[in-house]
Amino acid sequence: MKRIMINELNNYINEKVQIQGWVHRIRKLKSITFIILRDRTGLVQCVVDNEEINSSEIKLESVVSIIGTVKESKNNLNPFEISVEKFNIINSSLEELPIEINKENLEVNLDTMLNNRMLSLRHEKVNSIFKIQNIIVEGFREFLNKEDFTEISTPKLVEEGAEGGTEVFKVQYFERQAYLAQSPQFYKQMMVGAGFERVYEIGHVYRAEEHNTNRHLNEYISMDLEMGFIEDVEEIMNLEENLLKFILNKVTDKGEIYLKLLNAEVPSIGEKIPRIKLSEAIDILKTKYNKTGLEGDIDPEGEKLICKYAKEKFGCDFIFLTHYPRKKRPMYTMPCNTMETHSFDLLFRGIEITTGGQRIHDYNMLIENIKYKGLNPDNYESYTSNFKYGMPPHGGLAIGLERITAKILGFENVREASLIPRDRMRLIP
Amino acid sequence: MKRIMINELNNYINEKVQIQGWVHRIRKLKSITFIILRDRTGLVQCVVDNEEINSSEIKLESVVSIIGTVKESKNNLNPFEISVEKFNIINSSLEELPIEINKENLEVNLDTMLNNRMLSLRHEKVNSIFKIQNIIVEGFREFLNKEDFTEISTPKLVEEGAEGGTEVFKVQYFERQAYLAQSPQFYKQMMVGAGFERVYEIGHVYRAEEHNTNRHLNEYISMDLEMGFIEDVEEIMNLEENLLKFILNKVTDKGEIYLKLLNAEVPSIGEKIPRIKLSEAIDILKTKYNKTGLEGDIDPEGEKLICKYAKEKFGCDFIFLTHYPRKKRPMYTMPCNTMETHSFDLLFRGIEITTGGQRIHDYNMLIENIKYKGLNPDNYESYTSNFKYGMPPHGGLAIGLERITAKILGFENVREASLIPRDRMRLIP
Repeated sequence: MKRIMINELNNYINEKVQIQGWVHRIRKLKSITFIILRDRTGLVQCVVDNEEINSSEIKLESVVSIIGTVKESKNNLNPFEISVEKFNIINSSLEELPIEINKENLEVNLDTMLNNRMLSLRHEKVNSIFKIQNIIVEGFREFLNKEDFTEISTPKLVEEGAEGGTEVFKVQYFERQAYLAQSPQFYKQMMVGAGFERVYEIGHVYRAEEHNTNRHLNEYISMDLEMGFIEDVEEIMNLEENLLKFILNKVTDKGEIYLKLLNAEVPSIGEKIPRIKLSEAIDILKTKYNKTGLEGDIDPEGEKLICKYAKEKFGCDFIFLTHYPRKKRPMYTMPCNTMETHSFDLLFRGIEITTGGQRIHDYNMLIENIKYKGLNPDNYESYTSNFKYGMPPHGGLAIGLERITAKILGFENVREASLIPRDRMRLIP
Repeated sequence: MKRIMINELNNYINEKVQIQGWVHRIRKLKSITFIILRDRTGLVQCVVDNEEINSSEIKLESVVSIIGTVKESKNNLNPFEISVEKFNIINSSLEELPIEINKENLEVNLDTMLNNRMLSLRHEKVNSIFKIQNIIVEGFREFLNKEDFTEISTPKLVEEGAEGGTEVFKVQYFERQAYLAQSPQFYKQMMVGAGFERVYEIGHVYRAEEHNTNRHLNEYISMDLEMGFIEDVEEIMNLEENLLKFILNKVTDKGEIYLKLLNAEVPSIGEKIPRIKLSEAIDILKTKYNKTGLEGDIDPEGEKLICKYAKEKFGCDFIFLTHYPRKKRPMYTMPCNTMETHSFDLLFRGIEITTGGQRIHDYNMLIENIKYKGLNPDNYESYTSNFKYGMPPHGGLAIGLERITAKILGFENVREASLIPRDRMRLIP
């Protein structure tokens, strides 16, 4: 007998069906037992005669198969219930559950939630986080496909970290040393030059951050894009604006039930995301919020305050900070004068979710800038050699998937938006 | 002035437009020069007055911007040409090209092709490989989304390799030892149990294979799926059959021009892919092809011969080999008797492209089977503990993306179907 999903039961009223799923809740009365069954599409109440089963043998979260007749009902969970004829335990739970997952809220701390990841994900609120995350990914892909971008997948085992620095994981690659890629930066630029012109990648990136903060993961999903034949960096910011509008609309439409469950409010972008120079932002933080000591970048507290400012002044949950100093940006960043670059960060609800900018496309300028940054051009030859053969003007950006998910849903800790997070302490599950 | 793409020119006949791209070919006559310009959408001939430019300064593969009028023409490349008014070099090639990319075929060996990856990808035949690959990925996603699968992304930094064995890359993870995941096996099973029921992942996997063969990559893209509440392993094979039909139809329809360019023939599956027991295949190889010495598995030559057999006997480019021995399959594989398992390989045009099977869902059976394989269950606790809380019967498979791409296109070497391959010797580009 074919299995029917719970959300299809309305097509089978007064018919005999088979459903399968997990035992979500059990309530034993004198002569009957109510069992709430859960499958990936929903919940349904099943009514079993106590002579048919030994209800003390039925454990929460066991996998069961039920054959019975679909009846209309008046319970508020579901307009149907199953009058059970055959109840079969497929795979019983063996132990008491370490966490309670049939309550309205999963009332455990984050560590317990992550240590019991398979169980916590069965809770509909936790599950909903990743439904929303999937809609974000889908929106990113759909928008960029529409704009004629090509999806790529580039190596994560690399000879040299894209950004340099010490925050790289080392891998023993046979007799050589390799690293885990901190970003697909070099490769996405190369693919622009390879004739794809517009590319994106949704993939893992690795940062060996020593700090165990609520903003960082050591392995996370980066939604990267890179676009050739641009006029200027404004074009990249315009693209991100439209991309985010598209994604947020999709989340609002397709994610309605999950947003409601999670009590989350999708941010509004309005007409435009405000764009201010970083130096201006630092001035505002100083004069308006008395925050001093910032030079060439702003710290987490500054990010929160400048987002507060953007919300109050422009009614926007987002703000672009532009013109980051050359000293603070990687060597591939296009300078706009001796001090500043054509680059930006996008902050959202108090945290940076994007770094982007225009890149250098001229070979000689690139070599000079590598030297300016105190690096040795010889170490980057497999990258720089590409610039000898017609690299178009280009730029791009990356959006941290877990961060944007967390902030849309109003979480303080980015780990809540990671299916299986990796951090300073956490290598399992 | 807005840039127009070459495939849009038919909308602008006798109008002035701007196009941008790479200089594909140059032919200088007495008073005019023909320049073929290439952008991501195609090629167009541009006619420039020699008084307007110094054609000796124009180098192949330079990035240029052209303003001119679209004229109807009779050349066979394109029904339009551009009468150039303004010719502007945006970024000139600096050196002689190391490979010729404007010939019908890229006549270089594989190493040269890969060492000059940005340039070789500009060749339309090389580029077409990855157009086909993207259609395969799209087909995989589209079919599984339709079947109510959820896309997941799981960690590649793991505490223990899923399959055990020595072919794992080691990573220094702060003060601990981590490994690069050989497959998302444990995580996809966990996500089935987490209530998603049906999941897929398209992501990197890592194999520290010492051998540098034309069948192996050390980092490759695995298209994995896992499905809960199955009846038996046949259901997984049925799913793969339908999935492949869907993908191949999509490749045929959407990939027509690329297939033609690459002179490739999409395989036909016919009604059903033949399914024979591995032991039977070994008998056939012995009696029909005089191939002896095979026990419990078949070698690359045997794979080729049994595919030949399937083609001759069933007219099918694919064949399922089933019932692999317990000794040869990982500990999570569902046994069907004391010697064999509910598992399969799918061979396609002489090579294994899928390994799949039903998994053990019963906790005690899993612990016993780990011991049977000579492993210590304590080392797998973060995996096995999930099986205490209602794991449904399930199974799944993985398809190697580069392998299936290579075989559809008739390549002998899997590297041709990898955008940026990683092998025993190759860490750059």
